[in-house]
Amino acid sequence: MIDDSPLLLTLELAGIFVFAISGALVAVRKQLDVFGVLVLAGTTGLGGGFLRDVLIDATPPKALADWRYLLVPVVAGLITFVFHPALGRLERVVNIFDAAGLGLFCVTGALKALDYGLGPVPAALMGMVTGIGGGMARDLLAGRVPVIFSSELYATPALAGAAWAVFAHEQGWALAFVALPGLVICFGWRVLAILRNWRAPIASGSPSV
Amino acid sequence: MIDDSPLLLTLELAGIFVFAISGALVAVRKQLDVFGVLVLAGTTGLGGGFLRDVLIDATPPKALADWRYLLVPVVAGLITFVFHPALGRLERVVNIFDAAGLGLFCVTGALKALDYGLGPVPAALMGMVTGIGGGMARDLLAGRVPVIFSSELYATPALAGAAWAVFAHEQGWALAFVALPGLVICFGWRVLAILRNWRAPIASGSPSV
Amino acid sequence: MIDDSPLLLTLELAGIFVFAISGALVAVRKQLDVFGVLVLAGTTGLGGGFLRDVLIDATPPKALADWRYLLVPVVAGLITFVFHPALGRLERVVNIFDAAGLGLFCVTGALKALDYGLGPVPAALMGMVTGIGGGMARDLLAGRVPVIFSSELYATPALAGAAWAVFAHEQGWALAFVALPGLVICFGWRVLAILRNWRAPIASGSPSV
Repeated sequence: MIDDSPLLLTLELAGIFVFAISGALVAVRKQLDVFGVLVLAGTTGLGGGFLRDVLIDATPPKALADWRYLLVPVVAGLITFVFHPALGRLERVVNIFDAAGLGLFCVTGALKALDYGLGPVPAALMGMVTGIGGGMARDLLAGRVPVIFSSELYATPALAGAAWAVFAHEQGWALAFVALPGLVICFGWRVLAILRNWRAPIASGSPSV
Repeated sequence: MIDDSPLLLTLELAGIFVFAISGALVAVRKQLDVFGVLVLAGTTGLGGGFLRDVLIDATPPKALADWRYLLVPVVAGLITFVFHPALGRLERVVNIFDAAGLGLFCVTGALKALDYGLGPVPAALMGMVTGIGGGMARDLLAGRVPVIFSSELYATPALAGAAWAVFAHEQGWALAFVALPGLVICFGWRVLAILRNWRAPIASGSPSV
Repeated sequence: MIDDSPLLLTLELAGIFVFAISGALVAVRKQLDVFGVLVLAGTTGLGGGFLRDVLIDATPPKALADWRYLLVPVVAGLITFVFHPALGRLERVVNIFDAAGLGLFCVTGALKALDYGLGPVPAALMGMVTGIGGGMARDLLAGRVPVIFSSELYATPALAGAAWAVFAHEQGWALAFVALPGLVICFGWRVLAILRNWRAPIASGSPSV
């Protein structure tokens, strides 16, 4: 079982918080009402973990057994609802925190999947799903094609961080050597992708219709 | 375990029926074929319960173990397919029945979540999800942002009704005092919201893009 | 338990392969990047089985326990990413293979649902869901209403093939008499629907708005 230390809990709640802000910002821009803002905040903050837990049969998801996991996106949604002009201007900063949340989720998601008996390749994939699932659910509910399919690199750093965590865990290394480099790989790569506008290639040639 | 009385079964099937009609009406208006009408009827009628059951690990959902739960949306879909002009004119009436279905689902959903060991806050949330999940799935499949994010109050009454059911159940009160006031709170609030056009607030200020 | 023979595994991977190609083609046409192409390939190839497995509580899905199930959509996605102009021109051929995948999935999906204790009607429905779920998830992620709601017959042949498999399995017949006719019914009907442009009816009368 991965460490249930207060540090890890705090980090995880912080990750949910920044993800929830990104969801709430999308909702405000779509002119949704305060309830829509809260739903998109909750979906974005918790959706990736829910999707992972349903697939690896870790239901009910931990977020449904611990009220703090539910409170955090509500607070994030209300803050965004009130202060969205300021948060919107700080989007660069939000994106950096979002990258940190991504790094954390891909590592904890992969380790949880290993805990539940998945093999290395599916566990790394579940780590990536934990990181990107919330944003994909947010975009589905907001009626747009998931932005991670066409913006700066997002899923690839998450997969890389998750893959490191799986690899290091399989070597039996201490948690610090499993989690920290995975987080740094994902976070660093994602931040560089934002700063330098790195994107995944698009198919060449005109698409036949 | 919540009461499996014939009365409750009848009410639940009636709730599925009106939800399924609302899904089928959306499908007809989107010019989908009869199969699309049936899928949207089924998704709207059963989707909220499916989502709840998957999250609280009550799989396979009851609707997959009892053919009546599957028959009802098929019948509702076919009726809508044939009589949609009349049903469309009766939309006010359909909305009132829909409010009754919402009231019923939020109560039974919350009680089922308690049965499966969830705490009070997540159980109330699952009650709301049971009520609103089908309509959200309907709108996703129909290619539009869920209407509950921007129309008259819908989720708030469902959450209030579910919260009452959880609170009263925790007090150990008889089922009638648990279920009926919850249903009335949700139904009454929702009907008033429709009649008086009550809406949740939208964020003020121009959304930064 | 349905036969885990090498033949069945090969057929199933082939079905995932053609489904994944159809998902990747949609992604390329939407100008998604290579990661989006892989996600849509994986979702289309594996989504129907995932949805079935989550609903019948067969989690984690087999595709997460066997790396070959994950490798196939990646390969299909990369091939499509590079050779999409040729594949797009071969769409008729891809559709025929897709019909074969549909026939296979509706039969294996129905038999798996029976294995997990579902009754005949829900099992046939789960067979249909296995066949059509991947394409529906593909269309949701690509931001369009599922094409099976308005194009040539797709779900009806899948339901018919699944119904045959359930019926024949209930008679206790040998696997060959269960699976082959079901596959042929679905495949043949679907191919005829493509060739002759058979469609399900649309509701008559102008839809009231």
